[in-house]
Amino acid sequence: MRFTARVEVRLRAGIADPEGATIERALPALGFGDVEGVRAGKLFRFSVEADDPATAAARAGELAHRLLANPVIEESSVEVEHEEPEGR
Amino acid sequence: MRFTARVEVRLRAGIADPEGATIERALPALGFGDVEGVRAGKLFRFSVEADDPATAAARAGELAHRLLANPVIEESSVEVEHEEPEGR
Repeated sequence: MRFTARVEVRLRAGIADPEGATIERALPALGFGDVEGVRAGKLFRFSVEADDPATAAARAGELAHRLLANPVIEESSVEVEHEEPEGR
Repeated sequence: MRFTARVEVRLRAGIADPEGATIERALPALGFGDVEGVRAGKLFRFSVEADDPATAAARAGELAHRLLANPVIEESSVEVEHEEPEGR
């Protein structure tokens, strides 16, 4: 069965986020004074072939840990969903 | 009330994704032959001050459209959630 996996990669709390800080600095001048605490992260989507959702999630987590996130400064979370046979 | 907004920014279908393609090329050699179709995107989280969830979502969507995504090649989606008063 094919599963669609979504991996979110976020900087750990306390790790400096220059991209988020730069966006946040621009906000008041652009009329977004109601927005604060901007944190930037990454999102990966891919398709995994596995027998069941638990195996697909484990494979996606392994990939996230080995390739997509730097575990020293980033944390990741994984969601998997069964792909519809006829595509979406 | 404060809301936590999550904005996902994804490349539109058909737009070349060099980051995803590079990851995908590395996968077979790393033992991830069961993974394909890697697409890389961005994820932003921030806090919005608004009277209700609909207003918060509208503000987050405006910010996504004006600052976070390039609407020519990217699409974005927004989710908002009420922030717990005592932090989480």
